[in-house]
Amino acid sequence: MPDPLPTLDEILQGNARFRESFAWGGLDVHPRRQVAILTCMDSRYAAQPSLGLDQGNAHVIRNAGGRATEDAIRSLVLSAHALGTRGCIVIHHKKCGLYGTTNDDIRSAVTEATGADASSVDFLPFDDLEESVREDVRTLRACELFPAGYAVLGFTYDVDTGELAPVEV
Amino acid sequence: MPDPLPTLDEILQGNARFRESFAWGGLDVHPRRQVAILTCMDSRYAAQPSLGLDQGNAHVIRNAGGRATEDAIRSLVLSAHALGTRGCIVIHHKKCGLYGTTNDDIRSAVTEATGADASSVDFLPFDDLEESVREDVRTLRACELFPAGYAVLGFTYDVDTGELAPVEV
Repeated sequence: MPDPLPTLDEILQGNARFRESFAWGGLDVHPRRQVAILTCMDSRYAAQPSLGLDQGNAHVIRNAGGRATEDAIRSLVLSAHALGTRGCIVIHHKKCGLYGTTNDDIRSAVTEATGADASSVDFLPFDDLEESVREDVRTLRACELFPAGYAVLGFTYDVDTGELAPVEV
Repeated sequence: MPDPLPTLDEILQGNARFRESFAWGGLDVHPRRQVAILTCMDSRYAAQPSLGLDQGNAHVIRNAGGRATEDAIRSLVLSAHALGTRGCIVIHHKKCGLYGTTNDDIRSAVTEATGADASSVDFLPFDDLEESVREDVRTLRACELFPAGYAVLGFTYDVDTGELAPVEV
């Protein structure tokens, strides 16, 4: 059974505990390692630590699946041109909630629970983990809004072992 | 001066160090606290720890600004209906790269560096931090794709002190 939703009081108490050992003040808005990570919203994953990067090193863009959506591209383009990043690392993971499901399944669940029509939403499910990484790496490499020499690498992540594996594209 | 972009070898070495103390195996795909956090890609911020939450507790959706975009809603709706979250916490932060800039400024920078036309991209800059939180909380509360009783709270975050402050909406 899951635990209950955090209350406002609990969030404020949790934040007070967090501040007792807070050591990240005074960092610059420009990511120190000039890189952005595009990855999934999954609760089991922590992006910068998994690459051995420190706080302040990399922008972190996260959505369902870690997909190269229009909004992820908005964020990455801003990251590059306003905040100096020169590359992006795409990471999709094993046991993802989007793996092996379909738009029809998700849309039916939404309509059953709310009565609302979700037929216009593409939830971007996928059946092949490495192929979804390749697809998103290719999308970013083909985007003309990034600076010359912008580097895009792709990886898969194993939520049970913490292992990153490069994906050749 | 920033440090250079991480190389593939450096990423793999960093990941090997990360795995030496990896303790997050075996967690469930459903976030244990039934909540999602929508926040900015800023490199200085770590979402779950700042609320006193443990790994595996909350989905984390991040984009430039932490804005309630169509893609953030895709992720949150999936989080709610496929993975059991019942609420969302919107967090925008002080010293954000999107604060006090304009679409014209960002589009000019993109075109100057690449020659490409970015006029169709709304980068979602903002001039008032609390108001941008309110706007996005209202957008999510008005969205008919979330389950009945879906809770949305808003906060600002101070990157130099680690403090979360509730925003009344």
